[in-house]
Amino acid sequence: MSDTAALSSALLSGRYRALAKAISLVERDDPAAPRLLAEIYPATGQARIIGITGSPGSGKSTLVAALARHYRAHSKRVGIIAVDPTSPFTGGAILGDRIRMADLYTDRGVFIRSMATRGFLGGLARATNDVVDVLDASGFDIVLVETVGVGQDEIEVVRTVQTNLVVLVPGMGDDIQAIKAGIMEIGDIFVVNKADRPGADRTVTEVTMMMSLVEEHAAWVPPIVKTVASKRQGVEELDAAIEHHFEYLQTSGELDRRNRERVRIRIETQLKEKFMDRLIGGTMSRADYEAVLDDVLRKRNNPHDAAESMIRRVTF
Amino acid sequence: MSDTAALSSALLSGRYRALAKAISLVERDDPAAPRLLAEIYPATGQARIIGITGSPGSGKSTLVAALARHYRAHSKRVGIIAVDPTSPFTGGAILGDRIRMADLYTDRGVFIRSMATRGFLGGLARATNDVVDVLDASGFDIVLVETVGVGQDEIEVVRTVQTNLVVLVPGMGDDIQAIKAGIMEIGDIFVVNKADRPGADRTVTEVTMMMSLVEEHAAWVPPIVKTVASKRQGVEELDAAIEHHFEYLQTSGELDRRNRERVRIRIETQLKEKFMDRLIGGTMSRADYEAVLDDVLRKRNNPHDAAESMIRRVTF
Repeated sequence: MSDTAALSSALLSGRYRALAKAISLVERDDPAAPRLLAEIYPATGQARIIGITGSPGSGKSTLVAALARHYRAHSKRVGIIAVDPTSPFTGGAILGDRIRMADLYTDRGVFIRSMATRGFLGGLARATNDVVDVLDASGFDIVLVETVGVGQDEIEVVRTVQTNLVVLVPGMGDDIQAIKAGIMEIGDIFVVNKADRPGADRTVTEVTMMMSLVEEHAAWVPPIVKTVASKRQGVEELDAAIEHHFEYLQTSGELDRRNRERVRIRIETQLKEKFMDRLIGGTMSRADYEAVLDDVLRKRNNPHDAAESMIRRVTF
Repeated sequence: MSDTAALSSALLSGRYRALAKAISLVERDDPAAPRLLAEIYPATGQARIIGITGSPGSGKSTLVAALARHYRAHSKRVGIIAVDPTSPFTGGAILGDRIRMADLYTDRGVFIRSMATRGFLGGLARATNDVVDVLDASGFDIVLVETVGVGQDEIEVVRTVQTNLVVLVPGMGDDIQAIKAGIMEIGDIFVVNKADRPGADRTVTEVTMMMSLVEEHAAWVPPIVKTVASKRQGVEELDAAIEHHFEYLQTSGELDRRNRERVRIRIETQLKEKFMDRLIGGTMSRADYEAVLDDVLRKRNNPHDAAESMIRRVTF
């Protein structure tokens, strides 16, 4: 029996303490983590993985809490993974949210993890996917992944969810809509939160107009749902939209495509990581690698030839 | 004499037609491109590479044009690389800008290239850096790289410039500032453009406040410059701030650090590309790779073990 077998088995039977232990193991990249993840992997694939992307000002955390309470009322177990940029700005907000979300923090049917300040160097997407697997295998029905949607790691995370909600708020002018062009493309459902503020309908119109430019022949036209998350308004409608999207994913074959893409991204990320680990510090010492960088910096070599000669040291 | 030697030599002597030809070669990833890039690489490192990051609504293109005209007035040759997301939103804007920038399009001291619609799959950052090299080697003094700053490729591009300007506009509320948290971290200089609009000073105050949270002990405190790019106001001040930043880069050793980081990113990007090319479709057929994905999807294997067994087929 492997070191991790007891933990895997406790996790698969849904024990809360095993869950916390397994997630810590994965987060600190413990040598036993790959074994554990391999053992629990066959039990994954049951959870609905939902991304919630929006700015800190959009009330996105409040919406996540409202969704979590809604799912809890339907006896579903809910995991919340907060992926925020490693920015000091988010520190205060998270503290405030913790107080407003005290009921969720004490509910054993809810597991909340912030990935904000752990400083995963380039490995945030991998760590997030691994934590999703742990929650999924442990019997959580829903995993909510909260992101700001800006930055390389964040976009990678968003690419691996099944349904992504993009949260907007009224009163953002043309400028903000334009900024969000990059974010618009990743929305399966648009949420206009704080919809009791003036300008909510205008925002809905603006999003509809933007959508008409992109989605002309699309099989899925993202719906726009108005919510007031702080008053838990619109959450039923949002749940229905998420359910409707999931049906579309299943019937269109898009779910298979996304799951396959998720697997592909996960494998390729790990392949590249393992390759760099074995090449630099393995086949070639770190000092030799720094010397290659020096040569390129001093124009004695160039990036193309440097990469080519490094890859030639590896036998395929 | 290699096929590319005549082109390299024409390029290094600054011929305009050679420039266009070389850039086309690089952009379409011609088999001769790596040779050409290797030949010209020793002549690079002279240009100042400046990033201009901001939303389409920020007047960023107008600011790029104003900067370009300013540098032209000082007899400097200016390259402009517009890196926009491959979104249909940007199509119209670029056409409008072309008309307003007609003087730049007909000036042989200016070279403009849009990377917006060419669909570099994951290779946008590499292509952009290669085009920067071509302009640099061809004697361009300044290369302006215009980005929206959202998305994985864009962030990679921003990481390889020497000085990055983040362009804001007045009248964006707290929400917008919050959204930009991710973008704030990449600013060497903040530009409040459209500073003749109401609220410009408030925006300056907001940015100053955000900065005080992050930059407490920083060696470089990003200045905030107000401009009205459409009236060419504030461009002198902006040029002075850019110059000041460059002096800081040189005297602090930060320039060496950034140049080294740029080389590292370029080599590692190419290593990973070459590795994946040789592994999938080389060592292992595409069909075999798809079968590995199938196994993981059907839970007969897991991402960790799949990546591990694939990397074991390679000898380090």
